[in-house]
Amino acid sequence: MTTPTRGRLILMPNSLDFGTPGTPPDLQDVLPLGVIRRAASLTHWVAENAKTTRAFLKRVGAVQPLATPLQVLSIVELPRPQKGSPGAAASMPEPLAALLAPALEGHDIGLISEAGLPAVADPGAALVNCAHAMSVEVVALPGPSSLLLALAASGLNGQSFAFVGYLPVGQAERGARIRELEALSRRAAQTQLMIETPYRNAVLLAALLAHLQAATKLSVSCGLTLAEGFTRSDTVAGWKARPVALPADVPVVFSLLAG
Amino acid sequence: MTTPTRGRLILMPNSLDFGTPGTPPDLQDVLPLGVIRRAASLTHWVAENAKTTRAFLKRVGAVQPLATPLQVLSIVELPRPQKGSPGAAASMPEPLAALLAPALEGHDIGLISEAGLPAVADPGAALVNCAHAMSVEVVALPGPSSLLLALAASGLNGQSFAFVGYLPVGQAERGARIRELEALSRRAAQTQLMIETPYRNAVLLAALLAHLQAATKLSVSCGLTLAEGFTRSDTVAGWKARPVALPADVPVVFSLLAG
Repeated sequence: MTTPTRGRLILMPNSLDFGTPGTPPDLQDVLPLGVIRRAASLTHWVAENAKTTRAFLKRVGAVQPLATPLQVLSIVELPRPQKGSPGAAASMPEPLAALLAPALEGHDIGLISEAGLPAVADPGAALVNCAHAMSVEVVALPGPSSLLLALAASGLNGQSFAFVGYLPVGQAERGARIRELEALSRRAAQTQLMIETPYRNAVLLAALLAHLQAATKLSVSCGLTLAEGFTRSDTVAGWKARPVALPADVPVVFSLLAG
Repeated sequence: MTTPTRGRLILMPNSLDFGTPGTPPDLQDVLPLGVIRRAASLTHWVAENAKTTRAFLKRVGAVQPLATPLQVLSIVELPRPQKGSPGAAASMPEPLAALLAPALEGHDIGLISEAGLPAVADPGAALVNCAHAMSVEVVALPGPSSLLLALAASGLNGQSFAFVGYLPVGQAERGARIRELEALSRRAAQTQLMIETPYRNAVLLAALLAHLQAATKLSVSCGLTLAEGFTRSDTVAGWKARPVALPADVPVVFSLLAG
């Protein structure tokens, strides 16, 4: 009796153009050919969203024909993330373990989110955690990350930085959180990165300018990897003197460093 | 009199195999073709290290012939980073502004470090900062980042994380810092990422296991994008029960999340 070689959990990067208007960039501008080929070879997927995964695989197939027709591929959606502690998955709930069953039969499984790297500012960490607990090897493939592209382009401190996700929506809580992040940034000389749902981009920018001190540096990276993408870095005083309108349909990463 | 179109500062990702033994991965496994082509088109470079940049450009040229012969390219090294506050560059010292002069004449300038993305856990942020101050557009191109690949593969919290760079070398200070990071991680449910000079990988792992609590999760990503690379995630108790020897010549990213 031989045990089949175990499959691995392959963390597949996606492009960053999900939900954005206009022509998406060429897949070969944002993903390595080796990664595109790996995507074309996989037969089993776990996805944040099956529909966008099929759209991704169509783009992949235009570069490298899929080994298995799209209609025959297994694409299973991740269960909706539970609210609460991301460590909650340590108990390895049954549904997640079941998603990894093909790996025990020797199939590599691709994990993919709607944009960027899975399990970073995105669902998927619980499944990765589960893979480790089941001794399924985890391999992350290189691709675009809006957070690190924004950080690099910001000119702020790249030796110490934190990503804090979304800010509270309520006006008072948001203001308090912004002042807390500025204090944290000052104490540790640490760049603080955050994101927002695109239709609230302008609201968050206004809140940051209202609550941050004049000398604090604020960087805004808008539509990274898109043709019209840009990064602007300035002090809060500079932003107020030269305001910029942000689009409501393109992802933005905001970074601040207390002056 | 016409003003020439201004050149941009292009943040060029490098592969992650700098200084590692064995055959480096195919450049097309780690960099998008569009990025390789952009690298082949540039005539002006600012580099952490000129020699490794020439080696990079030879690999680029094997995929896409360089527009300008290697011998004729301008490759200028970044001044050694000053100790102290990374914000110190805000005063835009003369040498940095001079490095960007070709952009004012219409040339795109590539900024490249020895591995991964420039200006992230690497020199370069001061030059990027200077570019923003001079209204030179900054464009970050997608490529591998060991930090984000490690975070994705760790299964730890990817919704809130911090990169804190290197830990102190002195034994007592290092122990204190490890306990401080664990407390920070617990308070904010925030994954803490750190790196070490490869020959001290084993020493840092031993220190982490000595100072962290048994239920804290520790993930070690070793040689990401290399053939023999791996990520192992377990509790500190699990690491102690099943120890792993780390190589002394391959970069490792360490991530922890308090249990």
